[in-house]
Amino acid sequence: MVIGIVGLGLIGGSFAKALKSNTNHKVLGYDISQKAILESKLYNAIDGEIDENTVTECDIIFVALYPQATSDFIKMFADKFKKSCIIVDCGGIKRKICEECFKIAKDSGFTFIGGHPMAGRQYSGFKYAKDNLYKNAIMIITPPSDVKLEQLASVQKVLKEVGFSNIQITTPEEHDRIIAFTSQLAHVVSNAYVKSPNATVHKGFSAGSYKDLTRVARLNENMWTELFLENSDNLIFEIDTLIANLKEYSDALKEKDSDKLKALLKDGSDRKKQIDK
Amino acid sequence: MVIGIVGLGLIGGSFAKALKSNTNHKVLGYDISQKAILESKLYNAIDGEIDENTVTECDIIFVALYPQATSDFIKMFADKFKKSCIIVDCGGIKRKICEECFKIAKDSGFTFIGGHPMAGRQYSGFKYAKDNLYKNAIMIITPPSDVKLEQLASVQKVLKEVGFSNIQITTPEEHDRIIAFTSQLAHVVSNAYVKSPNATVHKGFSAGSYKDLTRVARLNENMWTELFLENSDNLIFEIDTLIANLKEYSDALKEKDSDKLKALLKDGSDRKKQIDK
Repeated sequence: MVIGIVGLGLIGGSFAKALKSNTNHKVLGYDISQKAILESKLYNAIDGEIDENTVTECDIIFVALYPQATSDFIKMFADKFKKSCIIVDCGGIKRKICEECFKIAKDSGFTFIGGHPMAGRQYSGFKYAKDNLYKNAIMIITPPSDVKLEQLASVQKVLKEVGFSNIQITTPEEHDRIIAFTSQLAHVVSNAYVKSPNATVHKGFSAGSYKDLTRVARLNENMWTELFLENSDNLIFEIDTLIANLKEYSDALKEKDSDKLKALLKDGSDRKKQIDK
Repeated sequence: MVIGIVGLGLIGGSFAKALKSNTNHKVLGYDISQKAILESKLYNAIDGEIDENTVTECDIIFVALYPQATSDFIKMFADKFKKSCIIVDCGGIKRKICEECFKIAKDSGFTFIGGHPMAGRQYSGFKYAKDNLYKNAIMIITPPSDVKLEQLASVQKVLKEVGFSNIQITTPEEHDRIIAFTSQLAHVVSNAYVKSPNATVHKGFSAGSYKDLTRVARLNENMWTELFLENSDNLIFEIDTLIANLKEYSDALKEKDSDKLKALLKDGSDRKKQIDK
């Protein structure tokens, strides 16, 4: 097969490297940065470039750009993709991109499937891309309701070759609701955590819990701002729910209410045990 | 030397195992649970028991009990410890225990040093104790102002033998202020995080960030209630600071204010980079 990779940063670069390491597919790359293209060629992560001629060869294209750039790319080449081409994006939010691209795909005759690889690093750029970034990771996909089974099978086969051990199919709505909880809230909390005035003076006191809570505090603010705004309804719900819950602990402490505090902690602990079962 | 270990759970059990693995010191144990004593003997973690006779032999005693039980134990044997005995507790909060025990120690002639090993696991009990739990870990100690240098050297030597690579000396006040941020807040946030109604339905979607944020959600509510209430002033400050910061992200999302959201994220990200330098 000929597989296109659009956006050769951490996510796209890791797709390209994994495909070149694990398969004999021809890999074509696209990036607005000439440096990323050159690096990808230098590290043998791509066999050639996507342009308006070669794009017609692609059987599957993974698009790993910011949300707006993803739909811009797909619009730009909408009439060039072959009818059997399957395009999978890698964006963190699925409702908006799927609504837009399901329509463009239907109008132009190719297939669009929403995708979200559940892997990443707190760095970005091709130089951090790894051929094993997706090893044993989960890929969530949100196909259109009229997707054909053989298309799913074809995408699934390539995803397994890239390293994913688990492909989860869901709807864009469910994806966005859950991702607000598992990923977006985690990034907001981590980013807010380090704003305590005591954050700068804790050297030598940092327990594992602090390290875990703040691992994802360092982030790409441009990308996350776009992702958060696209999912603001779900993320606002999660932040406000957490604030309300945190306030209960603070209130129990202010009231020196040992029983209430213990009940709050036991409830959280029990829920975690239940979830991990 | 003869070293006493009081409380043979995760923390005390790991001290005992490390001492028996790494040194020739005689290790005496104490626990109100006969099961813990028997297990410790069975696994060769102690050479004998502490009672009102053998307690007089101890050169250093590490007390790894809940805060209230720690001061109860020290009061109970206050007249039995030899004058050269150094007692180090392992509790998570230092102001209250130090205030109490510095006084008892002065009155009775032995030495009390506050201690806090910065290591742990999300489980408790002797069966989870490991002889390498403290390998390369940090031990914070809060000695009395009139501590002698040779006493510090003696404690430091044993702590290095147990595996600690770094011994930090500070005051009880500074300890409690920083630990509220690095450890207590992390446990509260983690425990509150899993209370979202979406926490139970995320299976298959759990990113690394979710796993990190909730690792310490499961906790011993009895122990943490005691620790939190002893440090309520500092912990209330940290929770309320985090709530105020989280609210800013929520407000920016509600206002769909992209610039504000981006500035909030960049600020957190920059702080994290600065701290990690």
